Amino acid sequence: MRPQRIRIVEMGARDGLQNEPTVSLADRIALIDALSQTGLAQIEAASFVSPKWVPQMAHADQLFAQIQRQPGVCYSALTPNLQGFEAARAAGVDEVAVFGAASETFSQRNINCSVAESLQRFEPVMDAARQAGMRVRGYVSCTLGCPYEGTIAPAKVADAAQALHEMGCYEISLGDTIGTGTPDRAVAMLEAVASRVPIPALALHFHDTYGQALANIAACLELGVATIDASVAGLGGCPYAPGASGNLATEDLIYLLDGLGLSHGVDLDALIQAGATICQRLGRPNGSKVALARLSQCSITT
Amino acid sequence: MRPQRIRIVEMGARDGLQNEPTVSLADRIALIDALSQTGLAQIEAASFVSPKWVPQMAHADQLFAQIQRQPGVCYSALTPNLQGFEAARAAGVDEVAVFGAASETFSQRNINCSVAESLQRFEPVMDAARQAGMRVRGYVSCTLGCPYEGTIAPAKVADAAQALHEMGCYEISLGDTIGTGTPDRAVAMLEAVASRVPIPALALHFHDTYGQALANIAACLELGVATIDASVAGLGGCPYAPGASGNLATEDLIYLLDGLGLSHGVDLDALIQAGATICQRLGRPNGSKVALARLSQCSITT
Repeated sequence: MRPQRIRIVEMGARDGLQNEPTVSLADRIALIDALSQTGLAQIEAASFVSPKWVPQMAHADQLFAQIQRQPGVCYSALTPNLQGFEAARAAGVDEVAVFGAASETFSQRNINCSVAESLQRFEPVMDAARQAGMRVRGYVSCTLGCPYEGTIAPAKVADAAQALHEMGCYEISLGDTIGTGTPDRAVAMLEAVASRVPIPALALHFHDTYGQALANIAACLELGVATIDASVAGLGGCPYAPGASGNLATEDLIYLLDGLGLSHGVDLDALIQAGATICQRLGRPNGSKVALARLSQCSITT
Repeated sequence: MRPQRIRIVEMGARDGLQNEPTVSLADRIALIDALSQTGLAQIEAASFVSPKWVPQMAHADQLFAQIQRQPGVCYSALTPNLQGFEAARAAGVDEVAVFGAASETFSQRNINCSVAESLQRFEPVMDAARQAGMRVRGYVSCTLGCPYEGTIAPAKVADAAQALHEMGCYEISLGDTIGTGTPDRAVAMLEAVASRVPIPALALHFHDTYGQALANIAACLELGVATIDASVAGLGGCPYAPGASGNLATEDLIYLLDGLGLSHGVDLDALIQAGATICQRLGRPNGSKVALARLSQCSITT
């Protein structure tokens, strides 16, 4: 049964911008401040990782010091290790996130260890967060496909999601990292996970590489999942390849939710403006069809 | 209940190209010939209208004379009046199409008469087609929204669809002309129409202006509709405004159908190539995410 209210976790400033070739700290801060004025309840703002790995996410401490925090908005950050967690806590991050893969090969190739080992490495972060009274979100990547293994068995996703949940993650965000999922498989995956982790503790995080994300989310809403990750202007992916797109555009998600009569609390016009501004700053096309349609003066009469 | 096999009616060469600023006859023919090699069973190839109105569709007779017809492929054309029908018949068109709007205001503003009057004007075409033993397809525009009236009552759509069906159209294609529909409204519209016209005589023709077309189609498939119009590379809309997009990209539809295990008979790789070629010739971005992803060399590892 569909939920009546959807919580949107905005990914543009982190999962989106981390894939841009270059982005200034000022632009990152301006984006987060603009997003903060839209009614979004949660904004993933940064990663506390080595700038050697992800230079786009450097100076996360300065970012948190300079954003204009709005009451009621949760500003979260990715913290892959204890050092990152301590920096995030010192910076005043509201909530942190860790991640695991549903694909062994993906885990091995990307972080050179098994899925189980990767989760063990987060134990110190979980302990420290528990002591600090901070909530930890868990991401599972490759839930509907892996660039190396292809299709991933739903049970593998359920294993990873359950492990993160048992480690103490209050919510598990299920990522279709390469965007290859289609509705039936998305529903089957979600059902498999929901047999181990309660639906209210699950979120969807679908990339739109093959244009299927919105259809997949629409199908999964029927199971009652009520938290959805999305990225303003569809930020993310590889900016040099228009098809290697990021998360589903938040604007397009909101248009769907409005059409279905599901509340979300976000001011779509303000969000469109925030997305248009960062796209202009980055010189990249806007990945939201809703934004393009609304910003366009061209009427269609075909 | 979902159909097991989907018939795709390819719109790129007509509904797509008619919105391009300029397109050569040679490029139109090359596109149709390329589409003919993909396994598509029906290609809407041209409009037999005055070139004063739609210069992009000029020389439809020459087009039909020069395309390399493939056995088993139905080549159809839009014929808004008897003159157009006679020209289409002389050119050897396999099937013709007429159109009506579900919105009175849209009809008045675009063709300066009521919906009922516009349908009456097609009677001579219907009579001539009947005598010639040719099938006539009917389009209903604005089924999920009108640029002037906003939301359209499903009963209005049912009225127009039923009228076209009773006039002798073997199939009624329900157009979301401005792409503002969302799944629940799409399903409600289709249900209303299906109460007057049998589902096997209905098709969906959804523009993707707001990124909702695929989700809407996925929802409507559950009602058993088995014919879907789509446009290779998402051709169509206003090319000067990226957001004023055309029909749903055929490639993205096929990706969905493959994921759902529904057969369609189309070679996706060949279709992607056909779309890439026409986009290159027109110097326009490819509107299919599947095509962009498949054509891209950029791998995503986020």
